[in-house]
Amino acid sequence: MTTVAAYAAPAAKAPLERTTIERRAVREHDVLIDIKFAGICHSDIHQVREGWGEAIFPMVPGHEIAGVVSEVGPGVTRYKVGDRVGVGCMVDSCRECDNCRAGKEQYCTGGNVMTYNGIGKDGEPTHGGYSEKIVVDEDFVVGIPEGISLDEAAPLLCAGITTYSPLRHWNAGPGKKVAIVGLGGLGHMAVKIAHALGAEVTVLSQSLRKKDDGLRLGADHYYATADPATFEELKGAFDLIVSTVSAPLDLGAYLSLLRTDGALVNVGAPEEPVSLNLFSVIGGRKTLAGSSIGGIRETQEMLDFCAEHGIGAEIELIGAAEINEAYERVLNSDVRYRFVIDAATI
Amino acid sequence: MTTVAAYAAPAAKAPLERTTIERRAVREHDVLIDIKFAGICHSDIHQVREGWGEAIFPMVPGHEIAGVVSEVGPGVTRYKVGDRVGVGCMVDSCRECDNCRAGKEQYCTGGNVMTYNGIGKDGEPTHGGYSEKIVVDEDFVVGIPEGISLDEAAPLLCAGITTYSPLRHWNAGPGKKVAIVGLGGLGHMAVKIAHALGAEVTVLSQSLRKKDDGLRLGADHYYATADPATFEELKGAFDLIVSTVSAPLDLGAYLSLLRTDGALVNVGAPEEPVSLNLFSVIGGRKTLAGSSIGGIRETQEMLDFCAEHGIGAEIELIGAAEINEAYERVLNSDVRYRFVIDAATI
Repeated sequence: MTTVAAYAAPAAKAPLERTTIERRAVREHDVLIDIKFAGICHSDIHQVREGWGEAIFPMVPGHEIAGVVSEVGPGVTRYKVGDRVGVGCMVDSCRECDNCRAGKEQYCTGGNVMTYNGIGKDGEPTHGGYSEKIVVDEDFVVGIPEGISLDEAAPLLCAGITTYSPLRHWNAGPGKKVAIVGLGGLGHMAVKIAHALGAEVTVLSQSLRKKDDGLRLGADHYYATADPATFEELKGAFDLIVSTVSAPLDLGAYLSLLRTDGALVNVGAPEEPVSLNLFSVIGGRKTLAGSSIGGIRETQEMLDFCAEHGIGAEIELIGAAEINEAYERVLNSDVRYRFVIDAATI
Repeated sequence: MTTVAAYAAPAAKAPLERTTIERRAVREHDVLIDIKFAGICHSDIHQVREGWGEAIFPMVPGHEIAGVVSEVGPGVTRYKVGDRVGVGCMVDSCRECDNCRAGKEQYCTGGNVMTYNGIGKDGEPTHGGYSEKIVVDEDFVVGIPEGISLDEAAPLLCAGITTYSPLRHWNAGPGKKVAIVGLGGLGHMAVKIAHALGAEVTVLSQSLRKKDDGLRLGADHYYATADPATFEELKGAFDLIVSTVSAPLDLGAYLSLLRTDGALVNVGAPEEPVSLNLFSVIGGRKTLAGSSIGGIRETQEMLDFCAEHGIGAEIELIGAAEINEAYERVLNSDVRYRFVIDAATI
């Protein structure tokens, strides 16, 4: 056991404060990682505030982790001390179900172990990246290629894979018209990745406030959804729409922007149910779908793809003491485009 | 112009009564069909009662038409007098949009012409199959193979293709577990076709009242959805669910029955919006989709498939004077499984 500094929420909705936690001793297949950077994901806030249901406290959030290996267990084959590595939303899974065997650990039916706010197979609560060190089984560790700096790599572990996975699954690429709803932490990654995949990319954002950014990040077009004319002009325009927002959308309006056989894929979602007229999907054989993070192999593939295309997140680096303030700014959409905690300040 | 007998609703929600209508003179590419049988589709009732919005009256419903060619225009190449033919939900389309060119006339973006309650390219209202004869461009006429009797073939023109199309599109076949929600006019065809495609078929019906029928028609399993245990037992069981009902479903409950990457496809739909928690599709990357009838080439393919597999509809043959009573029985789910009007009685 190692005692390490961390930032934790002591109870639901409480501000995060500096504390210490115990990390398990390195086992046969474990990797000890000195965390260098940890991204702040909107879902950290959802969970600290129990927006997604009852949670485990004290909670050390953080599932966008980039760091350097400082110790390996005797059975570790993939990593060595000094390697640049990342950890995302999962640190274990059942490893036996069809999905795990197919590399879709994110859909593990046996029950995967979330990086924080989860219970490990040893019965202990898991704690995330807002901390100095973490111990993870090597099968849930990915390598960060040299082409990406660790601070800009951290958000790829959630925001990157969460958008890369549906863009690949629904075949974003040359000749495809792809819309990204929302230009936040997820959305800005979706724009970069969809552009690098060769798709024609349109941002659908509430206003034109971030238009210059959107075009700079790789979007070909940028529309304000607050303007009803947008929905007239873009009717039937897209093969794929990836919605990254957690505000309730008028699904019928967005489905009307799809071509026949198009798909509206939600990677963000409101906590409350939304209303849907099923005729919106029957006309034009449209798909309303969802997607959740990605598998471990796919996460490595995404990191390699991002390195090859020079893609990192757009970040605002903060000290750990600024976490609570950063949370408020995330809730006000006041970040371009991801807060990353410098773990040296924890 | 030819005057023919027909059954029409003179106004919204009015009972149907015997009348006469004019059929246009046979043009260059037209086929004149002596209608032998016309199926009664639930959507006939929706439209007569303006459940789907304002409609055109007087209305002669009927888009499940089987008959025999009695005259052809000089430019007709596919059909000759005496051929057994069918007409489904469409009698024309723009023929120029991407969907028309791809044989997906049902999703014509230029505006297709419905068999009834539509306006033809000549500006005249269209009238459907509850009549003695109909004149249709040969491109929207399909051949009924010898293997199927005309009365059992009629419902294939809507109920058959409406279920065949999504079953094929979402790859129902050997190794796939397919559930059919509702065992009515559409549902009983879906069971027959899914079984013939080689899928393992489960019927999800409100009660077990029609269980013996369901198993006889080709279902491997039959469950009552009124029993909450059904949703426990079948959690994650299906690759594909085709919902044929127009009652509002608890979408979250049905989505929970899908495996990862499974699809819930609606071919029936309630007139009112339904509620959906998007987390129901995010977990397991699930698809909620819809499908509308099928294209003309696909309708021919379906008829050939049905003939090859000895599939017709299960019908209750009625005289035209019984149409209004039949409507009431359809609304009460009191038909096994499709009313077909003997056009000789019109």
